[in-house]
Amino acid sequence: MSVLVVGSVALDSVQTPFGKVDDVLGGAASYFSLAASTFTDVQMVGVIGADFPQQHIDLFGTRPIDLSGVQRVANGSTFRWAGRYDYDLNVAHTLDTQLNVFGDFDPQLPESYRSSEFVYLANIVPSLQLNVLSQVRKPQFVGLDSMNFWISNPETKRDLGRVIERVDAVFMNDAEIRQYTGTYHLLQAARQLLSAGPKVVLIKKGEHGALAVSREGVFVAAAYPLEEVRDPTGAGDSFAGGFMGHLGETGDTSWNGIRRAMAYGSVVASFAVEDFSVQRLTTLTREDVRKRLQLLREVTSFEADILEAEATPNDAFRGRYSGPPARTTL
Amino acid sequence: MSVLVVGSVALDSVQTPFGKVDDVLGGAASYFSLAASTFTDVQMVGVIGADFPQQHIDLFGTRPIDLSGVQRVANGSTFRWAGRYDYDLNVAHTLDTQLNVFGDFDPQLPESYRSSEFVYLANIVPSLQLNVLSQVRKPQFVGLDSMNFWISNPETKRDLGRVIERVDAVFMNDAEIRQYTGTYHLLQAARQLLSAGPKVVLIKKGEHGALAVSREGVFVAAAYPLEEVRDPTGAGDSFAGGFMGHLGETGDTSWNGIRRAMAYGSVVASFAVEDFSVQRLTTLTREDVRKRLQLLREVTSFEADILEAEATPNDAFRGRYSGPPARTTL
Repeated sequence: MSVLVVGSVALDSVQTPFGKVDDVLGGAASYFSLAASTFTDVQMVGVIGADFPQQHIDLFGTRPIDLSGVQRVANGSTFRWAGRYDYDLNVAHTLDTQLNVFGDFDPQLPESYRSSEFVYLANIVPSLQLNVLSQVRKPQFVGLDSMNFWISNPETKRDLGRVIERVDAVFMNDAEIRQYTGTYHLLQAARQLLSAGPKVVLIKKGEHGALAVSREGVFVAAAYPLEEVRDPTGAGDSFAGGFMGHLGETGDTSWNGIRRAMAYGSVVASFAVEDFSVQRLTTLTREDVRKRLQLLREVTSFEADILEAEATPNDAFRGRYSGPPARTTL
Repeated sequence: MSVLVVGSVALDSVQTPFGKVDDVLGGAASYFSLAASTFTDVQMVGVIGADFPQQHIDLFGTRPIDLSGVQRVANGSTFRWAGRYDYDLNVAHTLDTQLNVFGDFDPQLPESYRSSEFVYLANIVPSLQLNVLSQVRKPQFVGLDSMNFWISNPETKRDLGRVIERVDAVFMNDAEIRQYTGTYHLLQAARQLLSAGPKVVLIKKGEHGALAVSREGVFVAAAYPLEEVRDPTGAGDSFAGGFMGHLGETGDTSWNGIRRAMAYGSVVASFAVEDFSVQRLTTLTREDVRKRLQLLREVTSFEADILEAEATPNDAFRGRYSGPPARTTL
C-alpha cells in the first residue's frame, strides 16, 4: 500500500564538523519520500518555487514517488533553511529560515491521494495537518511529527492537541515530549500522550536510537552503530520514512509490526546521516536495508540469563495504561 | 570466581531534581562491590576514616564482600563528594570534593587477594592502578575505569596509557574516550584504544546504554527503560559491577560472554539509579536481575526482515582492526 506524506520540500545549506553544503535538496517530505520509497509507493504533498532545480524533480522520478500533489508556485521561491551542527549532532543551530512559498502553503490532495491508507503528517503548522487529514477518506494508520515551535505557542499547541487525538502514532524527540507534557520521565510522558488517543508514541533520541510506547508494552530500538556520521539533517524524517514505508509494505500495524517497523526506521535513518543532504537515500535499496537490519539484530542480541528462565514477556510494561480503550481506526 | 576491586569508598551528598541526600554511602568501590556481590564474592580494596559509620560496614557484611583489603585510618576522615544533577542526568556538577584519607591512599593487597582472577581498577590515580595490578599474580581479566581529570594532565595521561596496555577491558564514557583519543567517532576511537592492547573497549553512554567494541565485533547494550530515575550517581560502577560480577560468576570471557556481561551490567545499573546512594543495590537479588534481563531481551528484540535473509553475522564490523594480535593473558 502507498504512503502519503505532507511536509516541506526545501533547499538547505548545512555545516557540520565534517563538511559544508549549500542549496542542497532538503525538507521533511523529501527525506521521508526517498526513505519510504525504498519499501513502497509514495504520494507527496508539498510546494516548491520557480527556482526548484529540475534535477531534484528528476531524482524523485527515479523512485516510486508520485509528485502530483506537489504545487509549483511560478512567481515564488522554494523554502530555504540554513543550519549548523557542532559536535553535539543532536542539536541543530538554525542560521536562517526563509519560508517563501511554504508560508502560504495550502495543501490540496489530488483525488488519487484521498483513499490513502497510510499517512504521515510531517512537521508543519498543526492547522494544516488537520486540513490534510480531513481530505483523506479513511486512513488505516496516521503518523504525526511536530516541533518545539508549535508547542511553545498556546494556540498552535491547542491545534496540535487536536491532531494528536486523531492520529495513530506520534513522533516526538525526547525534548519535545517533555515540553509538550511537562513530564520529565519519558515512559510517563508517553503514557500521558497515549491517553489522548494514539496507538503508539515514538520517542526519537537521535544517535541514541528510539523508544516506542504503546498499550502493549515498550520497545527500545537501538541506533545502528555507524563508522561515521556526516550530516544528521533529516534523520527523524528518514526514520519515519522507514517506519511508515515498512508499515505500507506489509500492512501489519500490530504491536509486533510496529516494533519491526521501528527497527527499519532506525536502519534507514542510519543510512541517511552517513552523507550530506538526501545523498545516501537516493540509491538506497531494499537489499541494503535487509542486510543492515540483520546486522542490527546481530549487534543488539545477547544470550538469555544463564539461570533457567520462566516466561515473563514484557509484563512489567503491560497494563500500566488506564485511559480509554485503544482506537483501531480514526 | 571472586572479583577484586580497588577504588573509592565515600560519603556523598547528592542533589537531583528528584530529591536530596547528605553523607550517604558512596564511592566507586561501594557501588561496584554491592553490584558484583549479586553474582559472586568480592574482595574490596579501599580506605576509610575514623568517621565511617559502622552501619555501612555492617551493610557490606550482609553481602559476600571481603573487607580485609580496606584500611581504616584512625586519625583521618573518609573521602567526601558533594554533587548536583540537573535534568540532564548524564552530567554531574561537583560542588565539593574532600579527598581526606583517600589523598594518601597506598593500597596494600592482603595475601588472600593476590591470586585474584578478575580485577576491576575503579577510577583512582593511574599510578595507583598500576601499583595494585603489580600486586596481583596472574589475573585472567582486568577492567579499568578512569576519568577526564587524569586524561587532562599529560603526566597522569601517560600513566593511564601504561595501565591501558595491561588491561583487558577499558571502561570509558563517550566524552572520555573522545578526549583520550582525540577522535570523535566512537567506533574509530575504540579501535584506537584496542590497538594499545585491550581485548574490549566498553563505552558508557549513561541513560542511553553502552557499546562494546572488540576485535570480534560491536555490541550495543540498550539501557533498560525505567519508569523513574532518582539518582544517577554510581551508575557506571554499578554497570561495571554487573559486568565483572557476571564474568566472575561464569568465568566466560569469550566475546559471547562479554556481550552477555554487558547486558547484565546494563540491568544492574538500571536498578542502581532507581534510588539514591546504593539503596537499591543493598537488596538486589540474582532473581531480580534474571527477571529484568529477560524483560530487556523482550523490549529490545524484533523480528527478522520479512525478506528472506542470508547469514551475514557482524561481518561489517569484523576484520576492521589491523593492530597487533589479541592478548589472552597479561
